[in-house]
Amino acid sequence: MDIKAHSQHLTYTDWTVSETHLAPERFNSRETTFTIGNGYLGTRGSFEEGYSRALPATLIHGVYDEVPIVYTELANCPDWLPLVVIVDGDRFRLERGEILSYERQLDVQRGVLSRKVRWRSPSGITIDIVFERFASIADQHVLGLRCQVTPVDSESAIEVQASINGYPENQGFNHWELLDQGKTEHGVWLNLRTRSSRIQLGMATGIKLSGAEASLQVTNPPGYPTLTASFLASPGQTVTVEKLVTVFTSLECENPVEVACEKLAQLPEYSSLLDAHVQAWDEVWQKSDIVIEGDVTAQLAVRYNLFQLLICAPRNNDRVSIPAKTLSGFGYRGHIFWDTEIFILPFFIYTQPELARNMLTYRYHTLPGARRKAVHYGYKGAMYAWESAETGDEVTPRWLPPNDFYGEDIRIWCRDREIHISADVAYATWFYWQATGDDEWMRDCGAEIILDTAIFWSSRVEYNTKYERYEIREVIGADEYHEFVHNNAFTNRMVQWHLEKALYIYDWLGNNFPEKLNELDQKLNLSSGRRSRWNDIIANIWIPYDESTGLIEQFEGFFQLQDINLEEYEPRTKSMQAILGIEEGNKRQVLKQPDVLMLLYLMRQSQEFPYSQKTLEKNWDYYAPRTDISYGSSLGPAIHAILASDLGKTAEAYERFMQAALVDLEDVRGNAADGIHGASAGGVWQAVVLGFGGIQIGNDEPVAHPHLPHGWRRLKFNFLWRGKWHAFDLRPQEDMETRRHADMEISLPASSSESPNIRGFIFDLDGVLTDTAEYHYLAWQKLADEEGLLFNREANEGLRGVSRRESLLRIVGDKHYPEEKLQEMMDRKNQYYVDSIQNISPKDLLPGVLTLLDELRQAGIKIALGSASKNARPVVEKLGIANRIDAIADGYSVQRPKPAPDLFLYAANQLGLEPAQCVVVEDAEAGIEAALAAGMWTVGLGPASRVGEAHVILPNLADTDWTKLRAKLNDAAAQQQKARV
Amino acid sequence: MDIKAHSQHLTYTDWTVSETHLAPERFNSRETTFTIGNGYLGTRGSFEEGYSRALPATLIHGVYDEVPIVYTELANCPDWLPLVVIVDGDRFRLERGEILSYERQLDVQRGVLSRKVRWRSPSGITIDIVFERFASIADQHVLGLRCQVTPVDSESAIEVQASINGYPENQGFNHWELLDQGKTEHGVWLNLRTRSSRIQLGMATGIKLSGAEASLQVTNPPGYPTLTASFLASPGQTVTVEKLVTVFTSLECENPVEVACEKLAQLPEYSSLLDAHVQAWDEVWQKSDIVIEGDVTAQLAVRYNLFQLLICAPRNNDRVSIPAKTLSGFGYRGHIFWDTEIFILPFFIYTQPELARNMLTYRYHTLPGARRKAVHYGYKGAMYAWESAETGDEVTPRWLPPNDFYGEDIRIWCRDREIHISADVAYATWFYWQATGDDEWMRDCGAEIILDTAIFWSSRVEYNTKYERYEIREVIGADEYHEFVHNNAFTNRMVQWHLEKALYIYDWLGNNFPEKLNELDQKLNLSSGRRSRWNDIIANIWIPYDESTGLIEQFEGFFQLQDINLEEYEPRTKSMQAILGIEEGNKRQVLKQPDVLMLLYLMRQSQEFPYSQKTLEKNWDYYAPRTDISYGSSLGPAIHAILASDLGKTAEAYERFMQAALVDLEDVRGNAADGIHGASAGGVWQAVVLGFGGIQIGNDEPVAHPHLPHGWRRLKFNFLWRGKWHAFDLRPQEDMETRRHADMEISLPASSSESPNIRGFIFDLDGVLTDTAEYHYLAWQKLADEEGLLFNREANEGLRGVSRRESLLRIVGDKHYPEEKLQEMMDRKNQYYVDSIQNISPKDLLPGVLTLLDELRQAGIKIALGSASKNARPVVEKLGIANRIDAIADGYSVQRPKPAPDLFLYAANQLGLEPAQCVVVEDAEAGIEAALAAGMWTVGLGPASRVGEAHVILPNLADTDWTKLRAKLNDAAAQQQKARV
Repeated sequence: MDIKAHSQHLTYTDWTVSETHLAPERFNSRETTFTIGNGYLGTRGSFEEGYSRALPATLIHGVYDEVPIVYTELANCPDWLPLVVIVDGDRFRLERGEILSYERQLDVQRGVLSRKVRWRSPSGITIDIVFERFASIADQHVLGLRCQVTPVDSESAIEVQASINGYPENQGFNHWELLDQGKTEHGVWLNLRTRSSRIQLGMATGIKLSGAEASLQVTNPPGYPTLTASFLASPGQTVTVEKLVTVFTSLECENPVEVACEKLAQLPEYSSLLDAHVQAWDEVWQKSDIVIEGDVTAQLAVRYNLFQLLICAPRNNDRVSIPAKTLSGFGYRGHIFWDTEIFILPFFIYTQPELARNMLTYRYHTLPGARRKAVHYGYKGAMYAWESAETGDEVTPRWLPPNDFYGEDIRIWCRDREIHISADVAYATWFYWQATGDDEWMRDCGAEIILDTAIFWSSRVEYNTKYERYEIREVIGADEYHEFVHNNAFTNRMVQWHLEKALYIYDWLGNNFPEKLNELDQKLNLSSGRRSRWNDIIANIWIPYDESTGLIEQFEGFFQLQDINLEEYEPRTKSMQAILGIEEGNKRQVLKQPDVLMLLYLMRQSQEFPYSQKTLEKNWDYYAPRTDISYGSSLGPAIHAILASDLGKTAEAYERFMQAALVDLEDVRGNAADGIHGASAGGVWQAVVLGFGGIQIGNDEPVAHPHLPHGWRRLKFNFLWRGKWHAFDLRPQEDMETRRHADMEISLPASSSESPNIRGFIFDLDGVLTDTAEYHYLAWQKLADEEGLLFNREANEGLRGVSRRESLLRIVGDKHYPEEKLQEMMDRKNQYYVDSIQNISPKDLLPGVLTLLDELRQAGIKIALGSASKNARPVVEKLGIANRIDAIADGYSVQRPKPAPDLFLYAANQLGLEPAQCVVVEDAEAGIEAALAAGMWTVGLGPASRVGEAHVILPNLADTDWTKLRAKLNDAAAQQQKARV
Repeated sequence: MDIKAHSQHLTYTDWTVSETHLAPERFNSRETTFTIGNGYLGTRGSFEEGYSRALPATLIHGVYDEVPIVYTELANCPDWLPLVVIVDGDRFRLERGEILSYERQLDVQRGVLSRKVRWRSPSGITIDIVFERFASIADQHVLGLRCQVTPVDSESAIEVQASINGYPENQGFNHWELLDQGKTEHGVWLNLRTRSSRIQLGMATGIKLSGAEASLQVTNPPGYPTLTASFLASPGQTVTVEKLVTVFTSLECENPVEVACEKLAQLPEYSSLLDAHVQAWDEVWQKSDIVIEGDVTAQLAVRYNLFQLLICAPRNNDRVSIPAKTLSGFGYRGHIFWDTEIFILPFFIYTQPELARNMLTYRYHTLPGARRKAVHYGYKGAMYAWESAETGDEVTPRWLPPNDFYGEDIRIWCRDREIHISADVAYATWFYWQATGDDEWMRDCGAEIILDTAIFWSSRVEYNTKYERYEIREVIGADEYHEFVHNNAFTNRMVQWHLEKALYIYDWLGNNFPEKLNELDQKLNLSSGRRSRWNDIIANIWIPYDESTGLIEQFEGFFQLQDINLEEYEPRTKSMQAILGIEEGNKRQVLKQPDVLMLLYLMRQSQEFPYSQKTLEKNWDYYAPRTDISYGSSLGPAIHAILASDLGKTAEAYERFMQAALVDLEDVRGNAADGIHGASAGGVWQAVVLGFGGIQIGNDEPVAHPHLPHGWRRLKFNFLWRGKWHAFDLRPQEDMETRRHADMEISLPASSSESPNIRGFIFDLDGVLTDTAEYHYLAWQKLADEEGLLFNREANEGLRGVSRRESLLRIVGDKHYPEEKLQEMMDRKNQYYVDSIQNISPKDLLPGVLTLLDELRQAGIKIALGSASKNARPVVEKLGIANRIDAIADGYSVQRPKPAPDLFLYAANQLGLEPAQCVVVEDAEAGIEAALAAGMWTVGLGPASRVGEAHVILPNLADTDWTKLRAKLNDAAAQQQKARV
């Protein structure tokens, strides 16, 4: 715990986040940051003494009540925090007197929030005040708050007032009617009821004082029962006030206030309750923790995000789910979005599947609401609400009222058009089942979800007779900047996928649970006509995908929209929609969040259409630069992190990952005050485990394809698959082989004490065996001349290692071209290059290559080509060395480019060798990185500044041979061994 | 005070309304009923002990804060009422233990609300508890609350908790941030600030206990400062707790909480404060009271309505005005409508003009908001907000959000279309000036209001080149059931009137305050072009008025709408809009409130176009039956009461009047819980003074044309005109002469001790000089035959004295005809009658008439005809007596029919005689009534059952002469004199 990271007045250790300075401008966002909870309720990190600017909130799952415009919201429940300390008549408040020291700390391991303040009162009394609170995860109806006061320099008359505030508010609105209040021998109680939904809530509290003789007194002003303790304390004398609170609602018992009072009467000591709570947290973390070594910010941030998810996941209730802002703020009013199914659920599915099941069962229980929505819109089956609450009816607001007297109301169209939610729910349902094998739940709940939403889709699609295809018109896709689009690729493909799964489930039910199928048949009318229609839609729904380019058009006509260069708007602190306005945003190729890329991400898990490394690459290049990843949707960064990681864009992947991981800790988007970004937190888990850890399911087992960010020395986590825990413990030096789990024996070159046993060589092509730089130059020059652009050899030098797109952008300079034009120019240049390499011949082999190849072959060493080029195979042919090469790994072989190890691992596999038996010869930094990541020996050609990480560095292959190389490799191995000892 | 009226558990005396039984279903409406206030704030009549169903509210003028949808609302201020009595541990609550007796009473004379309860606690202790409260009108920042407890049968340990509740709410929404709280030696205080408007409020309270030894204790839980007194009381021992509260806001001082604490420290005793308060009320009532004798319900109801207006009229603030629901509830959110200018202001203009000026100056201060609204809608000048709050910007909500998930939002169009408000403000401005002669205010404020709104109108009208006229299209008129109409007669005529007055004011300013005119010229650009346009609009704006019929079409095309018979919907308990829906209501000839009739009412005061007795009659007959007077707008009944009274429809007038007067006392419309119906209360004053009292301005002095409802023995009130008080004391037996004021010397025939000095005779026509009954019968018979309706001479007997319309309705019986058809039949019958009287000749003179006429003429006595018939003149011609008649008063002469005295007064005036010099000869009850009301001598022809009130009763004129008649009249005068002595 020595390692700390500091940022914006926050200090991170592996398990804690601390604030040592209260920044007024972060007052409300820090209330979100320091939220605690226990799966039953969440309580924002507001201060016990109360401030007018504060937004205290205790939100209980399912306690919804009506409100205008947004229909219903989680009602802020009575505040159990109020605890006022009065020192010689001076009320303790941070803005009064003087703060001599201050620390607020959230310990996510123990689920405890504490605050230590040394305060000098306006009268000059110095006192230490320590607060500690927890919402028991061991007993969800119990809340504990402790306050310890210690006068520092003089005896003080101290009064502590502990209350329940029966006037909680949702941004001013108080949902509660006060029914009754009173006292018992153990404390005071309050009985309230929500205005419209008429949910009753009982809360009781008692205090216990130790360390001094005190007089205790009860006052019961309406709605504000208060227990007051008055005592004298000498310097150094610590007096402890423990406030225990119990809370129940009529959602879980008949007479909540009675139950709360009974519970209060039976509670053990504060310390026992805390012990049980910490013990329970330990059990939770054993399953869900992720260990990261080498990056304390990432370590804490990841645990923090998981903590925030763990405290809002319903543990004993399958009629609620996690709202977009969890139980930590008023944003989105406690409504439930696709955020839960697509972004949050994977964490639970793979580490706490019983919680995932609770949340998916919520979708089962809310099918009636989804059916009412379908009826309202004139469709069949179940149409899930874009925003859902207690009943599943649609609660997305229709209007965003203007702030000024004459402003226009803004119509929000999501309730009507953002229909992909129904497929998203089916998606989560399917993968929960895949991961858990929970056939019983699929039979009882999941099947009905998937089938009745499939029925909705077949009533929602339209047949276009002109093009003889199914279409889905007038939707909003994943990207919400475009509000009225036809044939959104994301939606159409998700629907197709959904119907495929529906047919599968139908058959599965028939084979395994024919009675259940019969029941659903009766209930939903799953006629063969209906199923044949599903098949027809699957076959004929239009996905705007261009096979020739691999590019997917986000929706019909997207490419015709005005293009945009987001860099031109930098620096900015608000979303592109805020800058452009809704109308203008609709007209441009700017995305709020991944849409085509989101589709590729969702299809990545099962590697289904249209997912492929090629389409990913192609569409990433097109869509990533057009996505408002900084201020668009907070759902974007984690997904981009994973895809960038797949594409070997390590730095970008890490940047996006941290953008997601710190969104609430550091208020990256400026809206943390509204509550935790739940989807982003879920995305963080996916980015670490599925992205950096590279977990994929191979042969019905999770397999890691790790790709750790720079500096991460270790990544350790558990992954539950079909009832079996798989513990992954990944380290960068092990980042070389596809593994299934950590307890498998792996031979590492670096840990071997013997000389390397070299059995194969993998050569990069360009710059190693030949040099096609001249051909690239000539191709660019030709293009530049045709377009009248300035270009020459000197300029060409700057393009080494630069991507095709970036090269072109540098050549065009300040000139602006529409994207189509850029695309066309890149294609043209490539064609020139491909044409020119027709002229390659054996004379283009670099010096020393042919000799070395022959030597190696004579030594029985296998030879492979490892090049990202898609032209590698013809070039090898033309160089006349095809007969000397045993295997080729090229631009078609793997998805992730160097520095991902994939290409070399592929090559080794082709050669039938272990990575540690291979030597990679490379001239580029990313190539050396990739080889090291693959766990291979490396020979770097060129300056140390470029290939310095290689085991052996040579200027080129001209003056070497196998004997010399072997000696150098042996030396390198020995040195490495020595360094380790 | 012996006389009491009972109704729905309320008991009325002349000055008090009492509740002796708490009906649960009236819980919230009674909170409205028992509202108190002082012109600075209003406090609903909620109970001190607090209930979950309660809607306590203290609303302070001008303390607005933002809220969604409706933009801004009066923020409910901290509740100063909480006072909890705990008897031997049992909290006093009405639903616990047993209520042995209960009375809640509002004394509107003293402005004091009290409650007496004898309660048996659950533990069996019986105690008397008496509460009393007032909001001091002598010192508006002081509130007093007293609680007296007296154990009845056993010594009790009693605790009284007096608090300020810092968590007030507007239907759940709490507008306040708690800034600070604390205690002083005099009590506790609370400092809060509104969330958005950032108005600070300081409230302080202290308690004083007498009658027992008590321990006092202060607790200060956040937002709920509480003072607790604990004591023992023996049976019969009365302990009094006096809670005094002070309140200030930053609208009137810089540091409100400091000022509140200082004020609290300096306050005298409760009893002194109460005395000063009662004294101040006495002064208010001296000006504004109305005395009614003979009808205790009306007496109390009128005083109650005036009380509710007096407690919400801003006394020391000219930047606020009276909201639609006063300061007594949450309805309409404290927004200000035309209700204030048109319905409420007359009461103040004529009894407390300085308060009227405050409210009109509010309109002056909000001109900038009205100008912003005009700019927003693309117009010039000042366009007043339909709903106005602190700035004058438009705050009418655009939408009525639906209650259910899939309901449609309802667009409210008033902000866009109900534009007559700008003319309404000008109307009130003009009449304030007329009544007060306050030239200074007109110069400084009023002129700018009238002129800048006139500028708005000239940008708002459209010129229709086809018809060569100005039009105003796309409006909502006074009648809100029609939301999109063109050329609403009310609006168009009000605009024309407004422009006339604007030109007048322009000239007046030029003549009297040329510098001010110059200033406004500069500021508003009052170019001659602009003024010439005003003249042009005045000349050419279209008023849909048919001169031939006298009927005004409510708007273009109204008569083409589907007709409706509201009786078919009876009995009903909701508005026609609620029954038909908005769309269907728009399509029908059904009115929410008077529109054409409203225009006639507004033009009645100055007898301007299109007002005339004839148009009133004609349009009343058409529109009154089509107006949803019971559940449409609460603005309607009082106006209908006045017009019905004008039309001699006494019973209907009284019914409408009581509908208005009891709307809140008896919750006639079921929405009293939302707050007092301010406009209705203002209408009640107008109905009594301008309607029943018949006050009109003649010769620059108010003159009464009284027409007291049946049973009223006295109507007494004051009326201020141009700085001079006019005291009216009207009684039915004096209801006979036009008077200016009570202290004026009037020679009454009844009070003369001498023989009457008869100088003129006024003869009714039909039944006195001739008998046209036969002609009427023949005309009806012809119509009935043509229509196949049963009718005969016997049936005709039932039509004596019955109006044409009512006669027709009796003939048609159960059959339903559209209004047009009825109208046509009435016209046809009249034509038959007119045709038939062509045959009248001198032989149709009744016996004795010609002789008497000749005698009278020989005696130098003038002769007039006084007949309501519009055919009187031709009939007189045909009877051959035209040369014997000096003057004719007929159906064209005056507005109000008999029994109004107008016609005979008109005739006397034509003869140049005083009423007491005239004898009226009549054969109808209403005619005798009218003559007596005119202060004339009367000769009744017919049975005493019909004309028994006359001074002289004769079967007919056959057997009399002038000598005999004079003798009888002298006898009658002598008897009358004797009866008085």
